[in-house]
Amino acid sequence: MRAAFGAVVCLGLAACASVEVAPAPASKDAAGSVAYGLVKSLTTEVGPRLAGTKAEAAARDWAVRTLKGLKFSRVTVEPFAFDAWERGAASARIVGPGQAQELAVVALGRSVSTPARGITAPVAFVASFDDLLAAPPNAYAGKIVFINDRMVRAKDGAGYGPAVRKRGKGAVEAAKRGALAVVIRSVGTDHDRLPHTGQMRYEKGVRKIPAAAVSAPDADQIERLHDMGLTVRLHLTLRARDVPKAPSGNVVADIVGREKPEEIVLLGAHLDSWDLGTGAIDDAAGVGIVVAAALRAAGSDLAPKRTIRVVLFGAEEVGVVGGEAFAKAHAGEAKSYAAAMEADFGTGAVWHFRTKVAENDLAFFDAIGRALAPLGIERGANDSTGGADVEPLAKLGVPIVSLGQDGTHYFDLHHTANDTFDKIDPVALEQCVEAYARAVRMIANR
Amino acid sequence: MRAAFGAVVCLGLAACASVEVAPAPASKDAAGSVAYGLVKSLTTEVGPRLAGTKAEAAARDWAVRTLKGLKFSRVTVEPFAFDAWERGAASARIVGPGQAQELAVVALGRSVSTPARGITAPVAFVASFDDLLAAPPNAYAGKIVFINDRMVRAKDGAGYGPAVRKRGKGAVEAAKRGALAVVIRSVGTDHDRLPHTGQMRYEKGVRKIPAAAVSAPDADQIERLHDMGLTVRLHLTLRARDVPKAPSGNVVADIVGREKPEEIVLLGAHLDSWDLGTGAIDDAAGVGIVVAAALRAAGSDLAPKRTIRVVLFGAEEVGVVGGEAFAKAHAGEAKSYAAAMEADFGTGAVWHFRTKVAENDLAFFDAIGRALAPLGIERGANDSTGGADVEPLAKLGVPIVSLGQDGTHYFDLHHTANDTFDKIDPVALEQCVEAYARAVRMIANR
Repeated sequence: MRAAFGAVVCLGLAACASVEVAPAPASKDAAGSVAYGLVKSLTTEVGPRLAGTKAEAAARDWAVRTLKGLKFSRVTVEPFAFDAWERGAASARIVGPGQAQELAVVALGRSVSTPARGITAPVAFVASFDDLLAAPPNAYAGKIVFINDRMVRAKDGAGYGPAVRKRGKGAVEAAKRGALAVVIRSVGTDHDRLPHTGQMRYEKGVRKIPAAAVSAPDADQIERLHDMGLTVRLHLTLRARDVPKAPSGNVVADIVGREKPEEIVLLGAHLDSWDLGTGAIDDAAGVGIVVAAALRAAGSDLAPKRTIRVVLFGAEEVGVVGGEAFAKAHAGEAKSYAAAMEADFGTGAVWHFRTKVAENDLAFFDAIGRALAPLGIERGANDSTGGADVEPLAKLGVPIVSLGQDGTHYFDLHHTANDTFDKIDPVALEQCVEAYARAVRMIANR
Repeated sequence: MRAAFGAVVCLGLAACASVEVAPAPASKDAAGSVAYGLVKSLTTEVGPRLAGTKAEAAARDWAVRTLKGLKFSRVTVEPFAFDAWERGAASARIVGPGQAQELAVVALGRSVSTPARGITAPVAFVASFDDLLAAPPNAYAGKIVFINDRMVRAKDGAGYGPAVRKRGKGAVEAAKRGALAVVIRSVGTDHDRLPHTGQMRYEKGVRKIPAAAVSAPDADQIERLHDMGLTVRLHLTLRARDVPKAPSGNVVADIVGREKPEEIVLLGAHLDSWDLGTGAIDDAAGVGIVVAAALRAAGSDLAPKRTIRVVLFGAEEVGVVGGEAFAKAHAGEAKSYAAAMEADFGTGAVWHFRTKVAENDLAFFDAIGRALAPLGIERGANDSTGGADVEPLAKLGVPIVSLGQDGTHYFDLHHTANDTFDKIDPVALEQCVEAYARAVRMIANR
């Protein structure tokens, strides 16, 4: 079958061909298939789209063409620049004891390079990030610090916060203790030889040391050798480069309201992805969900009462640069937003509905909760802080609606080379589109 | 708990320490834990062990020390040499249309290198190996042939034979039709960005072209672009080198029979592995199974009626070189073998029992079948050809016993970087040890 909106989508590579839409497996609904078709198109034709690169620019071009083709109006790019980073080759090898063994390794985003010849040093095995924090200055002088925290699998992704601290701050804390480099067990829940990248940070006044992640099986290998009482020696080589003032931008598109066009329901997702995979679950899925949900919520005449705005953010992975830029540029109109939502948690079905709205609006949002309940969605608390890209809007007082997706398997793939189109579950994706559409429709037509 | 035999095992790296054995999950049986401990030790301390390399030699040293420590007698290495191959760097990139996209790629074993600058050429999309065979001479002149066969998942691994033809013969058949190189969809059943390597062959008189495999998601990407009517251009670089007259060997160890020491029950597995992972399922699992089963079958006094012989073959992956060498060296004693068995199908539970024995021996082997039935094992036909390493013995008339393991998930990992110790299922491994031990015990004490 072809989707209702499929025929008008101009793709990036095939000149204005139809979106080729897979049959909607558990639903005949067209918009769900639009979502699946969009994820397919973005991940296949643009592929990886690291923030600040030509590939991210190609994704913006794709988005502009696609959204215009889907009859959004006021499709614009709001450009910004930021200091970007590009990955080079990475390699890591156990060089002793025993036989040399290659490890599956990636640089963390923003990491400096090693010297060209690499770094060879004994590993200081650190069981957890908390152990690292507890170590005295110079505890790891001349060593490569290895941090072995495991991430806990959870439906709501609650294991991510504790586990990701070592990624963000591991290099700084290891450098303060004399380390030459830091290598972490990937922040993830899988057992594949596919390491997870993600942004790390340096601190002013602290020596910048290279930072990398190995896959879980490689971390296991280091752990087993350590448990045998052996000191592992690693050879680590990372090449990377900083790209100052790289271009990025947010793509903004509206379905203009017929009664209160100045009041806006915002639906966000991010266009950029990490560079290892094609960013299917992170966040082409979100792009598909919010675009399809906006269309479905607007109805077949595309004339909701209020304006429905889709924002496809740039440079989210590298520090929510697009989200901050958007909030700054639109701070003056913060009061115009009836609600902001985002989709950035893959392809799992929505199971949870939280808000952060005024107390006197709760009755209305509780009614949305009742409309979502038949989809298997629980009403949560009125304490949401929004996702990454809408959090800056939340801080400006914009009402927030959060649809929590099932993230049980999200961190198996997150930020790895395995984040590709084949991982998209079209049935769950369709449920997401319907959930977002129901919420948006009610807010837009309130 | 520690295993009964654990305390005497000398490991490669920790000087004669105990095998650290995980608690046997569904069994208190020591030998099962010996198997798990052996898989752990071999994969951790030796790691990848490509045939003909120092790592394979280290595996032989490990095997000799380990088998002596486990009180096998007559532990010997039977050396041989063969023309080996070592992998170098591999990269593949979609260079058009649209954005460049890196592919997950590996060289197939034995492949020649590309020129140092790589090969850049349009892809000839070939849906199946049969389509390749049907194409006329010069059909693919100047192209990189991409062969897209999918492997069918099956409990008995039946999908492998049809799917692996493209790996073995794809380069020859593509070269005959003018191709510059061949790239195949990996022979496997997973959807990970981890390509499957494996041996390929050249033919005298046919131009040698580079041969590589991409992961299933990368093959999907090429297929989607092709289905959009686009011609994909690939850039492929492979570095590899031939290593003439490389050393390898089979490790042979006996538990000498007390009544008929000259009659032998042979249990085989292979020591070498592909180089991408640590060869846990292929074939450290088999090594663990046959060693532990031999000990268990021999009983606590290690005195079976007949001799139980473990053979850990070298250079299996690269053309069953060790299996052929053993059969040649031992051809004169072929009549001494009461039976030969091998374990080379990962860590799945045994579900099937086949034989190739004399008709007048069937009643006895059917009794073994009845002893295996309580483990959930079905009696199959008397038509086995043996596994790769014992097939040369089968051709000499040695009776064959085949215990078929559940291979439903085996080809998710087979020949990939993902073949690591964490993939070993200790419960299933223990069932395998028990199944092999029951069969061996009955044959050895017949």
